[in-house]
Amino acid sequence: MDEFTLIRRHFATLSPPREDVSLGIGDDAALLAIPPGEELVVTSDMLIAGRHFPAETAPADIGWKALAVNLSDLAAMGAQARWFTLALSLPEVDEQWLVEFTRGLRELAQATGVALVGGDTTRGPLTLTITALGTVPAGQALRRSGARPGDAIFVSGTLGDAALALRHWQGGSAARTAREKQLRQRLDRPTPRLALGLALRGIASAAIDLSDGLAGDLGHILAASGVGASLDAQALPMSDAFADLVPDALRDELQLTGGDDYELCVCVPPQHIEAAGRLALTRIGRIEAEPGLRLVDAEGRSQAFTSTGYRHFP
Amino acid sequence: MDEFTLIRRHFATLSPPREDVSLGIGDDAALLAIPPGEELVVTSDMLIAGRHFPAETAPADIGWKALAVNLSDLAAMGAQARWFTLALSLPEVDEQWLVEFTRGLRELAQATGVALVGGDTTRGPLTLTITALGTVPAGQALRRSGARPGDAIFVSGTLGDAALALRHWQGGSAARTAREKQLRQRLDRPTPRLALGLALRGIASAAIDLSDGLAGDLGHILAASGVGASLDAQALPMSDAFADLVPDALRDELQLTGGDDYELCVCVPPQHIEAAGRLALTRIGRIEAEPGLRLVDAEGRSQAFTSTGYRHFP
Repeated sequence: MDEFTLIRRHFATLSPPREDVSLGIGDDAALLAIPPGEELVVTSDMLIAGRHFPAETAPADIGWKALAVNLSDLAAMGAQARWFTLALSLPEVDEQWLVEFTRGLRELAQATGVALVGGDTTRGPLTLTITALGTVPAGQALRRSGARPGDAIFVSGTLGDAALALRHWQGGSAARTAREKQLRQRLDRPTPRLALGLALRGIASAAIDLSDGLAGDLGHILAASGVGASLDAQALPMSDAFADLVPDALRDELQLTGGDDYELCVCVPPQHIEAAGRLALTRIGRIEAEPGLRLVDAEGRSQAFTSTGYRHFP
Repeated sequence: MDEFTLIRRHFATLSPPREDVSLGIGDDAALLAIPPGEELVVTSDMLIAGRHFPAETAPADIGWKALAVNLSDLAAMGAQARWFTLALSLPEVDEQWLVEFTRGLRELAQATGVALVGGDTTRGPLTLTITALGTVPAGQALRRSGARPGDAIFVSGTLGDAALALRHWQGGSAARTAREKQLRQRLDRPTPRLALGLALRGIASAAIDLSDGLAGDLGHILAASGVGASLDAQALPMSDAFADLVPDALRDELQLTGGDDYELCVCVPPQHIEAAGRLALTRIGRIEAEPGLRLVDAEGRSQAFTSTGYRHFP
């Protein structure tokens, strides 16, 4: 069996037949059915070994995470995730690696109901580009530009876990205890908040997913909406593992500027705050007319916050 | 200006406002309007420096070609090309490189009417993944599986030019004469046959674009359609430059197995052959019930042919 046949065989498990795929892998391009009245939602993210994940990351986790970071963008739009393409460059074709990589990818694909519909495989440095595709009823997508003064700011899940796990890893410590493993799972297997994104249609005025850190990502909403915000530092949600293991001096920094949590940060106008409160969200601040991001500390003091969050380049 | 701002500024020229883009670059994902009654057509191709193009290729040509190979897949489906995403990994941010790369990309994007709607940029080995998106009226796409015995086989343009140019380049000879430059242009700046793909809706029974060579790519049609074919070796269209410069002993090999031409190979049922004859196509053979690919030489002898070479019947 040649290498391409091997790869195709593994990837075939990612492409079950389904009604919204008229033609899947194996032609020049895929043919996909968009429900009437819906818009297409498209995002592409690239992951490079040694830059976006440690080169020694388990292949199943690489597969999971490459898809997760893309689906997280669809979640932040309130989209129904449907399909993805994968461009994979591999230094060598190692069947065990492919089995594991495909398993991690398939676990998330099946959990979220998305199908592989095309892509490309070649020999080269380990890089992955996934393009994720979904749909949303026209006019109902959650954008970054809709936040208005008076809106409440909410986040899903907990903040800082992935950044603390990355510090542990970079510091050379393996995840041995249950707490350490919980954090590491948050770094390796982020959960795209797709169901939450769907539930937020008609409720949120703006949304973004937290890939680069709360301050920087919320900053994108503020810039796109032409507003400012105050955050309550005491309200930022922490996991038990994070609360136990984070050094006090690092807590705010990791929660505000640590990346890779892939939670949603959303703004909610007053008339929908009650509805938002019934979702799995924590209220952390409010949108204000005054530009800039302010942090209100335990003593009620407001500080300007300028950090721009983590950037992949350089 | 930071590097992100620099890259965004260059790429902004690839995203003119247009009616089928509800939301372009700058949010978590793009929102795109699909015309009622049309299906989405999606393809992703990755190019790696040193593998898919010589590392010293002019950046403008890299930009052009990365988009061209993807649009060629849309052309082969009979799709209306509309949008693309770009994931670009660069060893360093070199503004002159970006200017040139973007210029080449923009030349083809403008010529074909496609808009950049998203993507990703990061530091790493020079690789590009483009996902091209288009639409086609439901049921009208050109697939690989529709060829039937009795269909005529046509190709667009000329065959072997890019492969001969690559041989010259690999042999260390610069393209100096007008003829050599014509060939080199075919390698560096392939033309996706989008208008032809549209014109072939309702005419062609099957289509593929020629990226890997006529024999191998036609072989994909034969396999998907469960048929065979005979090709007339004397009918394969040659450019004047190719005819002048190709060594006799290499002619058939380059025309049949040389890649990178990005012409279309299409099958046409008898009732549409006259219509196909009015398009920019050359008739080169016919589909037959007997499996396999046969080559009929100047003396009328038929030889069996495989994608990696051909052998005479014993």
